[in-house]
Parts: sequence; structure tokens; C-alpha cells
Amino acid sequence: MRPIKVVVPFKLDCAKSRLSSVLSSKERRDLALAMLEDVIDAVSGLGEVAILMKDPIPEGKTFDRLRSGQGFEILECPQELDPALNAMIEAEVREGWTSDILIAMADLPLMRSCDLEDLVSTPGDVVIVPGRGGGTNLILIRTPKFRVDYYGLSFLKHLRKAEELGLSAGVFESFRCGSDIDEPSDLVEVLIHGMGRAPELLRNMGFELSGRREKARAGCLR
Amino acid sequence: MRPIKVVVPFKLDCAKSRLSSVLSSKERRDLALAMLEDVIDAVSGLGEVAILMKDPIPEGKTFDRLRSGQGFEILECPQELDPALNAMIEAEVREGWTSDILIAMADLPLMRSCDLEDLVSTPGDVVIVPGRGGGTNLILIRTPKFRVDYYGLSFLKHLRKAEELGLSAGVFESFRCGSDIDEPSDLVEVLIHGMGRAPELLRNMGFELSGRREKARAGCLR
Repeated sequence: MRPIKVVVPFKLDCAKSRLSSVLSSKERRDLALAMLEDVIDAVSGLGEVAILMKDPIPEGKTFDRLRSGQGFEILECPQELDPALNAMIEAEVREGWTSDILIAMADLPLMRSCDLEDLVSTPGDVVIVPGRGGGTNLILIRTPKFRVDYYGLSFLKHLRKAEELGLSAGVFESFRCGSDIDEPSDLVEVLIHGMGRAPELLRNMGFELSGRREKARAGCLR
Repeated sequence: MRPIKVVVPFKLDCAKSRLSSVLSSKERRDLALAMLEDVIDAVSGLGEVAILMKDPIPEGKTFDRLRSGQGFEILECPQELDPALNAMIEAEVREGWTSDILIAMADLPLMRSCDLEDLVSTPGDVVIVPGRGGGTNLILIRTPKFRVDYYGLSFLKHLRKAEELGLSAGVFESFRCGSDIDEPSDLVEVLIHGMGRAPELLRNMGFELSGRREKARAGCLR
């Protein structure tokens, strides 16, 4: 089995804008950073981790840990998501594909290292982890032939792409890896199932479970 | 290993009311029935299946298959969900607990028989499958001591209850088993990941994927 390079695309600019009805701009950045740290903790047992950032890291204490690059590498890349990731894949192709590539979204704070062990033991030239609403929350690429296409219903697009290329596609389905945090109604999942910095931050912001099951609404109060 | 009795609570009256912005009353009943059939298909390999119904099955052709009871038993019970299920559990206790009990919600059309095989191989006196928003989508009960409590954030309540009773609780986390279909935004999951009658029915009603990833909105059009 080849080693795995983990790539986590991350943006601070306008981070988590769909949470603006319940969180201020600073809170959204803080949450985005806390979720990134939880994701780094979950993936760090797999191999080298690179954070792919479109914008440079801003000044300020909040970003000290990110700037320190402890346990991960920061790659600044001004390109949009797809060309940035595909450029990384092509760089690996030129190096002779000595590592497989796992792309993990930065807003998966429920994800645990045990989930990732199950993911990497799933067979397939590519292994796709669906997110809610048709997205691709993680993708493990074990072949130099594949390129990503995150725009739109990327789960189905990635499956179709693998088929067109004659590649085998595995689907790793997981509640925790499938729960990307975008909407106010997603915060309740962080409070219920999260175990890292993101739930701690939300609690420090004053969020708590309402006790009622409220899928469509926030489901948590402050 | 004891055999498993599967119980699927189901109601037709006011079925799936939170879908009323996109589906008529008749369409919601049809979808509820299609999802029930998909759930029965998924669970039927596990053991005896009982559909627990609060209301009698109405007249009409639509309900012929349900009335036929092919491959399952219909239990009419006027009680609310918790007392109805706990009465069934107590009946099994009186019979000497010769079977374990799996309670499966009727609105899980993404669930596949392979998911259930993984669920029943998960250790624990009880095994809980979380749904979105803090619910319990399935629960496997392997001990006569446990009673259910579905009101509110039942996932956490069931975990706590097991702990209080000194029982071991397993969590089986699954994207497909975790996707209960309640809201318009859930329909897109049926079209993307469903393989049975529910996605076929939605397509026949004119729903199709919009091509965009829209977690908060319907994500599908007609």
C-alpha cells in the first residue's frame, strides 16, 4: 500500500457565509478554524497533511496555530478549488505517483480517525465519501488518471467520471464523514456528535442543545 | 446469536406533513408507502418483520400491498409510539426473550440490506443508529432491560439510558441509515442514493436533480 498525502482545502475569506444568520463574521472564522483543527487531528494519522489555502494567512493571534504549521504544511494557491487540486494531482503524477491522495473538506468536525481507517480500507481506484445534498466530502485517489470536479452534484459526477475512465469507484458512506457543517441546522450535529474543538467553541459561544429534535431549525439555542 | 424481530412503526394519517410545501396529501401518503416498502425490502433478510400501525389500513387500491401483508405482519395498536413499542418489548420479555428486537423507522429509503448486515454485526447490548437532528433511526435491542424513549433528542437519551442501566451501547453510524426523509431538502438524497420504489415514485411525480448542490433547498425540481 502506498503512503497517503492528505490535502485539506481551506478558505478564511467569507468562511461559512451560510451561518451568518446565527454567527458573526469573527465567530464564523473561529468556527472554520476550529473545524479545520478537528479535521487535521482526524487525518493526521494517515500521512503527510497539506492545507491548501487560496488567501494568505492573516495577521493575528487566532491564526498563530495555523501559521505555525505544526504537523502540516501550508500551500498557498490563488487558483479556484478544482484547478488548484488538479494541479496538485498532476504534480504527484510527475513525481511518479509515489503517494495516493486523499482530499478532505475542512468542515467535517464529526469525523474521527477510526472513520478514516475504514475509509482507507475501502477498495477502489477512487473512494468517494458522499456529503449531504450531493457533495463529495472526501475522495481518496489511488490512480494517476483521475481529476476532481467539485462543482455541483460532485458525488454523482465523480462516480460517472470514474466509470468513463474505466476505474473502479468505491463509496464509503458515513454519517460523521457525511456531515459537513454549512447551515444553522448543522450546528446541532456538532454539539451531539463532535468531540473536538468545534463543539467546545460552540459551547463557549453559548450554544446548547434545546432538548428538542429540530432537523430543519437550529436545534440548539444560545 | 438470537434471531431478530424487526418492528417498523408506520402511520398514514398526516404522513410526512413537513413535505406539504412540495407534495400534496395524496403524494405524501404514496411516498410514505413507497419508503415503507423500501424499508421492508432492506430489513426482510434479517428475520420476521412487523409493521406497527396506529390507524387501520384504509380502503383503496393503493393499500392493497400493505393489506396483503406479504412478507410481514401488521400489528394495529392505538397507543402512541413509545408505549406501543415498549409494550412489544415487554411481550418479548414475557416470552423469555427468544428474539432480539430491531426497531427501524419507516422513512429510511436509502437503507440497504448490506448496511443492516453491518449494523447487526456491531457489538452492544443496544446498538443505536443516529439520524440527523438527534433522532434514533434504528435501534437494535439485545437485552430485556431496555425500553425506548423517542421523544426529543432520542439518540442522546438512548445512550444515557443504556449507561444508567449498566448496558453496553454501540453506535452504528451510517450516511444511508442516518438519512430520514422529512423535509423537502431530503428528497434530493432519495434521488441521488435511493435504489428502490421511493426514487422511482419521485421521478414519476416529475422530480429530477437540478444539477446544483443545494443542501438547504429542495435540490431537485419538477
